Amino acid sequence: MILEGVLTTLDCCGRVHIAAMGAEIADPPPSVPEHLVLRPYQSSQTFANLRRDGRGVFQITDDVELLARSAVGRAEWRGGVPAGCWPEPLVLPEACRWYALEVRRMETPGPRSRIEAAVVASGRHREFWGFNRAKHAVIEAAILASRAHLLPMADIRAELDRLAPLVEKTGGAAERRAFAFLCDYLKALGQEPR
Amino acid sequence: MILEGVLTTLDCCGRVHIAAMGAEIADPPPSVPEHLVLRPYQSSQTFANLRRDGRGVFQITDDVELLARSAVGRAEWRGGVPAGCWPEPLVLPEACRWYALEVRRMETPGPRSRIEAAVVASGRHREFWGFNRAKHAVIEAAILASRAHLLPMADIRAELDRLAPLVEKTGGAAERRAFAFLCDYLKALGQEPR
Repeated sequence: MILEGVLTTLDCCGRVHIAAMGAEIADPPPSVPEHLVLRPYQSSQTFANLRRDGRGVFQITDDVELLARSAVGRAEWRGGVPAGCWPEPLVLPEACRWYALEVRRMETPGPRSRIEAAVVASGRHREFWGFNRAKHAVIEAAILASRAHLLPMADIRAELDRLAPLVEKTGGAAERRAFAFLCDYLKALGQEPR
Repeated sequence: MILEGVLTTLDCCGRVHIAAMGAEIADPPPSVPEHLVLRPYQSSQTFANLRRDGRGVFQITDDVELLARSAVGRAEWRGGVPAGCWPEPLVLPEACRWYALEVRRMETPGPRSRIEAAVVASGRHREFWGFNRAKHAVIEAAILASRAHLLPMADIRAELDRLAPLVEKTGGAAERRAFAFLCDYLKALGQEPR
């Protein structure tokens, strides 16, 4: 099963890099998994960081503003705390729960790598809110934005038009901000969403 | 903001009735809300139960099989535990968290009622898993199934075709079972989904 979250890694200067990431977890999912599989593109900063440093923290969060920004490389670093096992502040304040990961195996069968990582520590900040159609509409829009260069503009526009009423009807201010951010991002790419 | 969950109420014979329900919660959502608003149809069993008994338990769960079955009135009662404030076993084992509700105000402005309820107790069983596209695809399919009588068959079929790959690619066995259940339900309604 694929759990959508945010991965923090360290670049060669020791700066925290924040990226949206789906993690493959065993089915049925254990309460804390022993390992998980990540599939970053070999061209990504995340892949370079994991190959060099071998460490990362996967955060499970219901904060869709963080997820939206992370999906398009625009997450703002607002500080973090250490994962316990390491001194670097890789755990973001927006995390509901987090898993500290050590790379055990890297494969590069194609543009997307396959990285098996062991969970070496985990923690919990707060409850994940639950099912909200607006939050999920933002996730779908974020995935769309991260793939904008691969998709026809008309398809992106149709999908945003389908998602917008869900955000309006079932979301709060944070969901509307996150969705507007993604629409603006796509507009700036020359993919005018409406 | 609207949180999707499952509401348990008591019918006139003291049996537990299980229904999918969206709850309106203040934005930004507090960790435990003091009250929430429900909008059941006046024609529903849930509305009758809340009007007569004035009590219910709202469960937040990531169990999409329960949500899918509840959305179309096919949830199986598999026992429950008391909410603490009352002896009846209204808390379902599938709940991640739950809020015991007492009706404070009922309005019937149209077919859908508006019911303000106070949270009089709350509890927690386990973590909500997190964002998973398959789980959310099942939620969307469940909402579709609950409105099947209002929608053209072609629209339902198109939506299920759009959702199916998300369930296949990102879900586990429970998500696939829940989605197949909804497809079968729609087929039995004469709304052949594919």
